[in-house]
Amino acid sequence: MAIVVIRRDKKIELWKNALKKASNGIKVYSYLENHPKEEITMAVIWKHPKGSLADYPNLKCIASAGAGVDYIFEDETRPMNVPITRIVDPFLASDMSEHVLAVILAHLKNLNAYKLDQVANNWAPKDYLRIKDVTIGILGLGELGALTATDLTKFGFKVQGWSRSKKKIEGVITFSGADAQQEFLKTTNVLVCLLPLTPATEGILNKELMSQLPKNAFVINVARGGHLIDEDLIELIDADHLSGACLDVYHTEPLPESHPFWNHKKVHMTPHYASVSDTTSVIPQLIENYNRISSGEKLQNLVDSDKGY
Amino acid sequence: MAIVVIRRDKKIELWKNALKKASNGIKVYSYLENHPKEEITMAVIWKHPKGSLADYPNLKCIASAGAGVDYIFEDETRPMNVPITRIVDPFLASDMSEHVLAVILAHLKNLNAYKLDQVANNWAPKDYLRIKDVTIGILGLGELGALTATDLTKFGFKVQGWSRSKKKIEGVITFSGADAQQEFLKTTNVLVCLLPLTPATEGILNKELMSQLPKNAFVINVARGGHLIDEDLIELIDADHLSGACLDVYHTEPLPESHPFWNHKKVHMTPHYASVSDTTSVIPQLIENYNRISSGEKLQNLVDSDKGY
Repeated sequence: MAIVVIRRDKKIELWKNALKKASNGIKVYSYLENHPKEEITMAVIWKHPKGSLADYPNLKCIASAGAGVDYIFEDETRPMNVPITRIVDPFLASDMSEHVLAVILAHLKNLNAYKLDQVANNWAPKDYLRIKDVTIGILGLGELGALTATDLTKFGFKVQGWSRSKKKIEGVITFSGADAQQEFLKTTNVLVCLLPLTPATEGILNKELMSQLPKNAFVINVARGGHLIDEDLIELIDADHLSGACLDVYHTEPLPESHPFWNHKKVHMTPHYASVSDTTSVIPQLIENYNRISSGEKLQNLVDSDKGY
Repeated sequence: MAIVVIRRDKKIELWKNALKKASNGIKVYSYLENHPKEEITMAVIWKHPKGSLADYPNLKCIASAGAGVDYIFEDETRPMNVPITRIVDPFLASDMSEHVLAVILAHLKNLNAYKLDQVANNWAPKDYLRIKDVTIGILGLGELGALTATDLTKFGFKVQGWSRSKKKIEGVITFSGADAQQEFLKTTNVLVCLLPLTPATEGILNKELMSQLPKNAFVINVARGGHLIDEDLIELIDADHLSGACLDVYHTEPLPESHPFWNHKKVHMTPHYASVSDTTSVIPQLIENYNRISSGEKLQNLVDSDKGY
């Protein structure tokens, strides 16, 4: 029994060493080094190269080292009957909630516009919005969406949420199903996308949906780049229907230099860093599931392969 | 009996008309038009030209149209025995609190740095801070300071405050007097200045005080430009003692084009618009005091001339 770490970024050694240190003698390999493939029972992965999961005959668990798992389903060469787990990190949700709150308040108080003014040596006061006058609409009421919605009510925002299946959250008006989407959208001043990326939600932030928001609505996408049709967003901002957007995620990351978002004054960018799993909170969950493989117990935080999240 | 409106900005007609509309027949003049000076019993002013208050023999009240009154005390030609009132606008305090929260969260989540990165076509993720790990220190616990402190505790921040005289605010550690300042400063990660501007507080944000903050502390000045020694702030940021600052107020406003703040990457500017009195919430207070002059009642929201606020 052993663990292999598969990821393409520079953090591979960091994760390997953190797992080793915390695991009290478990063998941990980087997929870049020589390793005995038949020994591997768990693969701890993040945005792995396609095909890299194919050659492990005794694999019992594909463990995503983050909350997202969409990239796993995009790899058709993965072993289809191996269970997939994801990270449920308490800080992932609270970090996301703090990011969304920061971005909403920056929008209300025009902070990004003022930063651009400063760069241009331009003193230009602008009217601001008040928390009490703004309705936030959260698309997706999973763990991140539900906590963000709850936190925002504490800060005095009116908050509503939409999800595929009916959810109940204290202080939050909830809508569910396709029929209720229009009602949800037309009363939303700031739309926050926190949906999982699945075939059903890909491209959901398109012209048809965003046109249903009231004039001057603001769009925040902190889910996945694949949710957004970039051209539709720009079209609706340039037509003065939307007042702007703040994006953390993109179809390609880093966003290519030539992409029009970089130079758009009303599109505010953060580099996919709203909420990031750090090893200290994540490693114990991975070790726990590794031990459950040995003892034959049910794995924690299993992903439903049908739903894709 | 009549009101004169004295201010140098473009809003003079707006205020004159709003007062007229709300006052049911009171005579209201702009100081720029011909008006019978002996009739004037109340002057509604905002940053008036020095000397413009001198010629009203029957003046009974100098009413500042905002929360600040420091500019009145700077005018030695004002009639010294006429009571001064200021605006106590519930939105002034909550708008300020929302501004301070926006600025703190933008700091935690690096939003200003990301905006500069976007302008420079640079994808550069940065570690962020969490609310639970940051202690906010509020200098000045008057109406704005007290509400801001209370609100920040609701959002999960550790909050402490310093004021000249002892204050008690639920959930907030309070310090008072010169002796306690060092203890307050050394545990403050984000310092928010909400002091009134008086001879005792002028230049209080100087090298000696700000050096006592821990390394990487962040400074927010939303009080008055006169509180801050600009060169000391820049020196402490450039020496990597402070991580940056966000300023809403300046010695001269608009800030002159040549001022080094404009081009400093770690000084973030807003154009004195954190919290602005609007006519709808302010006019009724002015009318109330105008009526009290007629009936000889004590004026509301009187300023203590000795303290200067």
